[in-house]
Amino acid sequence: MTGVERIFNFSAGPAILPPTVLEQVQRDLVALPGVGLSILEISHRSSVFESILAQAEADLRALANVTADHSVLFLQGGASLQFAMLPLNLLVSGATADYIDSGSWSDKAAEDARKVGTVNIAASTKAGGYSHLPRESELKLTPGAAYVHMTSNNTIEGTQYRRLPEVGDVPLVSDASSDILSRPIDVARHGLIYAGAQKNLGPAGLTVVIIRADLLERSAARKATLPAMLSYAVHAQNVSLYNTPPTFAVYVLGLVMTWLLARGGLDAVAAVNERKAAKLYAEIDRTGFYRGTAQKECRSLMNVTFRLPTGQMENVFLKEATAAGFDGLKGHRSVGGMRASIYNAFPEAGVEALVSFMRDFESKHG
Amino acid sequence: MTGVERIFNFSAGPAILPPTVLEQVQRDLVALPGVGLSILEISHRSSVFESILAQAEADLRALANVTADHSVLFLQGGASLQFAMLPLNLLVSGATADYIDSGSWSDKAAEDARKVGTVNIAASTKAGGYSHLPRESELKLTPGAAYVHMTSNNTIEGTQYRRLPEVGDVPLVSDASSDILSRPIDVARHGLIYAGAQKNLGPAGLTVVIIRADLLERSAARKATLPAMLSYAVHAQNVSLYNTPPTFAVYVLGLVMTWLLARGGLDAVAAVNERKAAKLYAEIDRTGFYRGTAQKECRSLMNVTFRLPTGQMENVFLKEATAAGFDGLKGHRSVGGMRASIYNAFPEAGVEALVSFMRDFESKHG
Repeated sequence: MTGVERIFNFSAGPAILPPTVLEQVQRDLVALPGVGLSILEISHRSSVFESILAQAEADLRALANVTADHSVLFLQGGASLQFAMLPLNLLVSGATADYIDSGSWSDKAAEDARKVGTVNIAASTKAGGYSHLPRESELKLTPGAAYVHMTSNNTIEGTQYRRLPEVGDVPLVSDASSDILSRPIDVARHGLIYAGAQKNLGPAGLTVVIIRADLLERSAARKATLPAMLSYAVHAQNVSLYNTPPTFAVYVLGLVMTWLLARGGLDAVAAVNERKAAKLYAEIDRTGFYRGTAQKECRSLMNVTFRLPTGQMENVFLKEATAAGFDGLKGHRSVGGMRASIYNAFPEAGVEALVSFMRDFESKHG
Repeated sequence: MTGVERIFNFSAGPAILPPTVLEQVQRDLVALPGVGLSILEISHRSSVFESILAQAEADLRALANVTADHSVLFLQGGASLQFAMLPLNLLVSGATADYIDSGSWSDKAAEDARKVGTVNIAASTKAGGYSHLPRESELKLTPGAAYVHMTSNNTIEGTQYRRLPEVGDVPLVSDASSDILSRPIDVARHGLIYAGAQKNLGPAGLTVVIIRADLLERSAARKATLPAMLSYAVHAQNVSLYNTPPTFAVYVLGLVMTWLLARGGLDAVAAVNERKAAKLYAEIDRTGFYRGTAQKECRSLMNVTFRLPTGQMENVFLKEATAAGFDGLKGHRSVGGMRASIYNAFPEAGVEALVSFMRDFESKHG
């Protein structure tokens, strides 16, 4: 890191990147080796960029075991644009889309879908402040629905699915923005997976969409009426090069894929993530001074949300934590308290340092 | 440049960036001074990023003389997503949008608009291969049209407007992707200006939209039916922070704005651009060996398109030019021949080097 002072970054996204990735980006920023141009300046039609894009896709496929049944698209606009593209492409007239309302982002996704077609909320835990996930037995699914939408990890509320809901033959669509590639993922059980890159994949400004062939066909049937940039089929036919993609973000995502492969793939990464979260939750549960906001069986391994005895004490905690080099711990205003986002790139040593800080803080103020 | 070997980049976009900008990005890549985190990792809700965004907007406003009548939005999806957002927000039911068809990108913009509403092609030079711009006297404008769409610089065909068409009270909308901030721009005469960043503003993955208050109101009237990410009004109300913006691209755009201000603003930049283009066109016109593809009165100062006597000779030219360190000179396949894109950041010395190469090539092969 060339002696540069860095702090622990618990931000929910844009989030921490692996130091080795940052160092490589820095080293090659002015001119890619053997190319003579910066990655920020090269044409998306150049063979150099085409190789970068193809390698990023190949590595992502290898990591998540994505077979030829699914296409991988690199798009823009974040998960939020997917809230629109999903129904515009897949919610055909007369059909209903089921949404499992497990958090603030599911709610927003459903809100946008309602502007396009008919939405059924299959279950909702909104009344309970989204402190837990809807149980599978509670789901009121629509027979023959266009798709069932779920949010695999609720970034704001700190809950996460441990297993996928059973939805029969209806395509399962998952917003996996905040836990994609944090553990093995059963792509084959999904019709579509989408994720903003800025938590576990790379920098902001890039969205990954993994879409099954039958859903691409459904999208293709709407090509005549859908503006090109909003069509999954158009992007797939053009291998994510319909227009200029966010070339730099794709490049950094590729470096993150290389880093994940070098770490041993998703099984190895998941083991570390389990360990990191377990250490933090153990401290939260140790005495009752700290209090987790998500129900235990639904706790997220990515976003650890907790509160302190009083709001005043939370302010003191935040202030002292910031001074001690722990950044981004303030929870979302809708939940309050603290949120420690500990994505793939967040180091175990950082979790240990936070646990130690929390213990000291409790001794002083508890 | 820390001794790194770089070549001359004539790419049409993503395109060359100022070396000082690249050096600053490189220097601060691992940790922004005084922040301790990389620009790639900081939260878009942090005060650090909010300052970067506000400064970028303030500098862009200062450069282009954008008053409070217009809002500045930083969006994603390139100009191509604007082809959709424009009619979705502004082409109300029952109205007609006029499109001036001056090049391949105007054509695509109109194609997307037709999926949304009624389009009138006010004039077209497609039949002539877009080698010139429609004359103002030829425009068949619709009284009370929703807007008139123009493309200020046609990247592929190498033509550029020298003065804005007169469209009365109808809002003028300009796709300025390939010439924004290359010369002074009369923002007050526009209802909306949009531009992908990757030519004159910064890296790919960022789009600037400058929109007048009355058009924002028109957009706001559609909020209930338009998905949030597709609504200008939503982005304006959230100061471009409705969702995670492409933080890194905004940061680099900000550095480019600082660079433009240091160069003396748009008058000074325009003078250099005039001089660069004049040198290149003078060489093209010198003997008749080279042949400009755009009609002289419509020639672009940004994208200089020309051909050689034969296709075979063009292949030799490209090969020798590449070997001599001139990259990205191959013209778009729809026009053929060569295209030298000489945006703001392209150095005058690079134009002189190309002119000298062209002269030598002609002596050898002419």
